Amino acid sequence: MQLLIPTSTRRLAPSKPFHLHRTSQCFNFGKNLILKRCYSQPKRGSYASVQPEHIHALRNILSNKTSLLTSIKGCDATVESVSESELDSFNVDWMGKYRGNSKVVLKPKSTEEVSKIVKYCYDHNLAIVPQGGNTGLVGGSVPLYDEIILNVGNMNSIRSFDEVSGIVTCDAGIILENLDNYLAEFDYTVPLDLAAKGSCQIGGNIATNAGGLRVIRYGTLRGTVLGLEVVLPDGQILDSLSTLRKNNTGFDLKQLFIGSEGSIGVITGVSLLAAPKLKAKNVAVFSLDSYDAIQRAFIKTRQHVGEILSAFEFFDQAGHRIQQVHSRNPKKIFDAGRDAAFFVLVETTGSNKDHDDQKLAALLEVLIESEIVTDGVLAQDTAQFTSLWELRETITEAAGKTGKVFKYDVSLPTSLMYSVVEATRKHLAELGLYKGEGSDGKVKSVIGFGHFGDGNIHLNVISDSYDPEVQSALEPFVYEFVAKHRGSISAEHGLGLQKAPHIGYSQLPLNVDLMHQIKSILDPKKLFNPYKFVYRPPLE
Amino acid sequence: MQLLIPTSTRRLAPSKPFHLHRTSQCFNFGKNLILKRCYSQPKRGSYASVQPEHIHALRNILSNKTSLLTSIKGCDATVESVSESELDSFNVDWMGKYRGNSKVVLKPKSTEEVSKIVKYCYDHNLAIVPQGGNTGLVGGSVPLYDEIILNVGNMNSIRSFDEVSGIVTCDAGIILENLDNYLAEFDYTVPLDLAAKGSCQIGGNIATNAGGLRVIRYGTLRGTVLGLEVVLPDGQILDSLSTLRKNNTGFDLKQLFIGSEGSIGVITGVSLLAAPKLKAKNVAVFSLDSYDAIQRAFIKTRQHVGEILSAFEFFDQAGHRIQQVHSRNPKKIFDAGRDAAFFVLVETTGSNKDHDDQKLAALLEVLIESEIVTDGVLAQDTAQFTSLWELRETITEAAGKTGKVFKYDVSLPTSLMYSVVEATRKHLAELGLYKGEGSDGKVKSVIGFGHFGDGNIHLNVISDSYDPEVQSALEPFVYEFVAKHRGSISAEHGLGLQKAPHIGYSQLPLNVDLMHQIKSILDPKKLFNPYKFVYRPPLE
Repeated sequence: MQLLIPTSTRRLAPSKPFHLHRTSQCFNFGKNLILKRCYSQPKRGSYASVQPEHIHALRNILSNKTSLLTSIKGCDATVESVSESELDSFNVDWMGKYRGNSKVVLKPKSTEEVSKIVKYCYDHNLAIVPQGGNTGLVGGSVPLYDEIILNVGNMNSIRSFDEVSGIVTCDAGIILENLDNYLAEFDYTVPLDLAAKGSCQIGGNIATNAGGLRVIRYGTLRGTVLGLEVVLPDGQILDSLSTLRKNNTGFDLKQLFIGSEGSIGVITGVSLLAAPKLKAKNVAVFSLDSYDAIQRAFIKTRQHVGEILSAFEFFDQAGHRIQQVHSRNPKKIFDAGRDAAFFVLVETTGSNKDHDDQKLAALLEVLIESEIVTDGVLAQDTAQFTSLWELRETITEAAGKTGKVFKYDVSLPTSLMYSVVEATRKHLAELGLYKGEGSDGKVKSVIGFGHFGDGNIHLNVISDSYDPEVQSALEPFVYEFVAKHRGSISAEHGLGLQKAPHIGYSQLPLNVDLMHQIKSILDPKKLFNPYKFVYRPPLE
Repeated sequence: MQLLIPTSTRRLAPSKPFHLHRTSQCFNFGKNLILKRCYSQPKRGSYASVQPEHIHALRNILSNKTSLLTSIKGCDATVESVSESELDSFNVDWMGKYRGNSKVVLKPKSTEEVSKIVKYCYDHNLAIVPQGGNTGLVGGSVPLYDEIILNVGNMNSIRSFDEVSGIVTCDAGIILENLDNYLAEFDYTVPLDLAAKGSCQIGGNIATNAGGLRVIRYGTLRGTVLGLEVVLPDGQILDSLSTLRKNNTGFDLKQLFIGSEGSIGVITGVSLLAAPKLKAKNVAVFSLDSYDAIQRAFIKTRQHVGEILSAFEFFDQAGHRIQQVHSRNPKKIFDAGRDAAFFVLVETTGSNKDHDDQKLAALLEVLIESEIVTDGVLAQDTAQFTSLWELRETITEAAGKTGKVFKYDVSLPTSLMYSVVEATRKHLAELGLYKGEGSDGKVKSVIGFGHFGDGNIHLNVISDSYDPEVQSALEPFVYEFVAKHRGSISAEHGLGLQKAPHIGYSQLPLNVDLMHQIKSILDPKKLFNPYKFVYRPPLE
């Protein structure tokens, strides 16, 4: 049998920007909003507007003319003048949901350039949006108004690599896949894998504490990031770029910046513990009768293949049916189990294929004998490996083809995780909006799938349109359900602009207050990525 | 072959409190210092002294009379009056190096009691030392003066356990071994293992970001701690006790408290991701000719047994010889390789003993064929398992029997790690203090051993006495060497009282300033664990 590597996975489409806190007045974003919706947009802060003299000064900081793009007229010939639309790839998020109105994009080539830019902006009261690959899902990586965009994509070098320890140090702007390819030459891999790997950047991954598919194997970035270099909002360079696995000398400052979404500085350098790249891969899909059976299957799986487990994903019957309708792969790989209530995908990654095969076979036997699973299939070749992964990964795409999708990315305690789907179905049915899967109600389908091993479920509610009645039925219902069970309204996508107003569903007031104090220490002028994350307007 | 569990490992003896920053005046601790040494003791802060009326008020907060111990005379009969010496187990650290002079020990039984105590102390300007199992190595867990001791040992219940996810929530005062025993019933284990497990407490482990023997397998506590409940210095209860693996809703506040050494609050509750307990265990010891060979062995080991590797320890010839002289085990298990320059201990933990045996045998073959190792032995039974671990673990004990030991616990980039031993030998030789191993110089032996996989080496310099000349030769030499190579002067033991003045060797001024700002937010009166960690005296 060949060694098989799974195909890149498909990123889940982001949720739409629903507004939870009803206001008496309904704003709209005007030019700034692509997807128009009732939303109380934060007022523009009292920041300076970028003028030609700012452009001139910023240009003089940069070593290269092409590092500054501006649509502001009247600048001298030393800058790269572009049309407004040429800034779209920086002003608009990758899903086309959020549009900013920045007229200046800076693409510095060194930490020193970043530092000088930021210092200048600090002195001149200019707001900044740090930007990596701009693949975020919550409107966190594009401006809301005319903030300057500070894109680190031109900083993309490997600084050092220690082949013994697997510790790599690199610029923040290196694309995740490029970093992984570099490490692969030394039989290492980045301990992070997500669908946007071809365009997202490691600095942005860390700034958003990206989760993805391998958390069950490698843990989160909070354990694997060893050090960061950050330019603080006043332009100072914070060197916390340790390459050590153990360092107990004071507060671990880098943790503040992991998942800080560009709110307290811009990450310019990264030190990361790469994982040894093990080459034996297996994947199996099981069908199960109940959610309880998934939990029992998970326990058995960890017992039998614990040390080689690299994914434990699940999806429900409704999701599977939709996927089968829109399957790109006409050959039904798992037809026998198609009417099961639930499905689980187990992937293993190890150093010895024979051992892994035996372990997985033993697991399968146990699961079938104990009647935890009703059926199962184990990939025998590359094509089957890909086909089995598609059962899980093309659900999002299939949902999009089925109708308009209301999406929620939440964490819940494992035992309760699927109850958010059941409760939502019941609630929608009671309101007369849902009459069962594929019925003619306003809601055609309610599906649940996700990263079981991480307690992270994706709830998708599919309707014919983005019907306000459905939206009102879902919110705050879903958020309240999550809050009631001490879940998280954002498991891995962050707060950004979209969920910033809703932080109270997952964090208590004291916690939020403390977050604001941390923000205030580091960004007293609130210049960094305003209106998002834990933002409160500055005092006038 | 039987399934073997390694014996509990021996904790390394802590370093002595050397002073780096020479002062013109030499203080001594007087009554407070057990090991008298030149040291610039911080001045007592302008805190209130505990009076009988404080005792009375604090007693009224507590639900149980035995929760308050005091040696202050003149308190009423509702408190537990004890002699000063009866407070020694709280005032003196476990190595007998540091002695505080507290007259009050509080042992609350609930978070609410802790909160009320702390609020009272805040209002009355009383300083507090939070205390767990008091097994710290740097004088961080005992008072310096008369601070109130807040011991959480009476809070030791499991609050919840999710058998599917392995997430356990418990009080901070539960003893690590008790927690591990509880989890073992469900085939889980705490992802942390250290010699003090029989007396250290999980809250203290987290407050000091304890490392130990399993970092190579499970990573640090920064990845495995999911949530914390903390009583802040003003008495407010910070509930960050999430039981979720993924939660991207704002700054990850719990990270501030991991490794904060009681400086910004007292941890009262803990949520932790337990690891599945896999039962197949193997251990092997190899001899090698050079430090470079250890690095090559490590790469091969991760390739062959990567997913089951649970320890990769090393020690040098000097350490091995000392261990052999003082071995408790007269049967020499690895006599053949005794003259090798270095030794490596590899432990594996997996779910299938046959597979692990095969992998380890294959590794051994590769290591011998490629001449990376010169010899090796694989444990065949429980006795051999124990004996092989003793080769590594009794080095500390043997060093103590050989003479007085100057000890350093440092992190360095892997490739440079052993050079701290070589440089120290050279430096001492140049000063005429070291004439080779076992010679008649003031320094009899310089040995290096530690957690290779974590980049954490223990440098032990053995002398006939704690000779000031040797001390002056070692400090700041060792710290400067570590700083020059961007290492950490405290890999896993923390700063405490001992290393607080030396933070500058591993952290830049900007970083330290930021740490002070964080401290100031949370503990504006500097009441919590004063004089330690990132302490600066309060403004008068």
